[in-house]
Amino acid sequence: MKTICLEPIGFVRNVRLTPEDDNWGSIVSIIELAPHIEPEALLGLDTFSHAEIIFYFDQVKEDKIVTGARHPRNNPDWLKIGIFAQRGKNRPNRLGLATVKVIKLEGRELHIGNLDAINGTPVLDIKPVMQEFEPTGHIRQPDWSHQLMKNYW
Amino acid sequence: MKTICLEPIGFVRNVRLTPEDDNWGSIVSIIELAPHIEPEALLGLDTFSHAEIIFYFDQVKEDKIVTGARHPRNNPDWLKIGIFAQRGKNRPNRLGLATVKVIKLEGRELHIGNLDAINGTPVLDIKPVMQEFEPTGHIRQPDWSHQLMKNYW
Repeated sequence: MKTICLEPIGFVRNVRLTPEDDNWGSIVSIIELAPHIEPEALLGLDTFSHAEIIFYFDQVKEDKIVTGARHPRNNPDWLKIGIFAQRGKNRPNRLGLATVKVIKLEGRELHIGNLDAINGTPVLDIKPVMQEFEPTGHIRQPDWSHQLMKNYW
Repeated sequence: MKTICLEPIGFVRNVRLTPEDDNWGSIVSIIELAPHIEPEALLGLDTFSHAEIIFYFDQVKEDKIVTGARHPRNNPDWLKIGIFAQRGKNRPNRLGLATVKVIKLEGRELHIGNLDAINGTPVLDIKPVMQEFEPTGHIRQPDWSHQLMKNYW
């Protein structure tokens, strides 16, 4: 199995210093580019309303990672389901993914809303949201996922 | 800068053997889980209509990677913009991201539509699409991005 090694292209700055499950909606974050990335890499991103951020849950310890099924949020009221049918952080490769609102660009800083990552989180990629890449047709999802998301934003 | 090393959680199988820009819509792909992932990791994913796939553009050579701005698809008719305001493959960390249709689960195999990755591509993560993580409000994007996407699917 060939290992894939990546360098953070930036880091998150915001007021949330420790992992929490809920109430992410009001937090404004800044992604500051890493030194090896030119500020021009962000040029034009503010002509898009939204972006997708791929980040790394660097606080998750190896022994917490689930490679099979578990109760969502370890809540036994919900049936066990696969880690790839959940979005929780204790997952193989520890990748996070958020669709954020682009607020503004300032040099090497991208200001965004709706990023559910804590201060210091390494960022691996930033992509513009295009309508053509959005889900086609009706989005179907199970009830537990709506319950889980109740207080998320 | 701390390097982040990841292991593929699966690999893509489909009929597209070399990178191409357009006409991805008709391709059905299978993601086959890597040996260190239990098949239970996919349990329940078929209760969702869509999933997000994070993958690795392993065919992209180091010297093709853009860390600043370029013309989208290197087409001089479009203004230079930042690599993070584009979704092309020649990007730092070579990460791809697709929103796919879940067709069916078969043991260690996930069958999907609308994955724009070629045969053999390493997969790094699979996440279920939940309405609560979709973009909020109107999606705004520049004209060039609509033109670029014209024959994509």
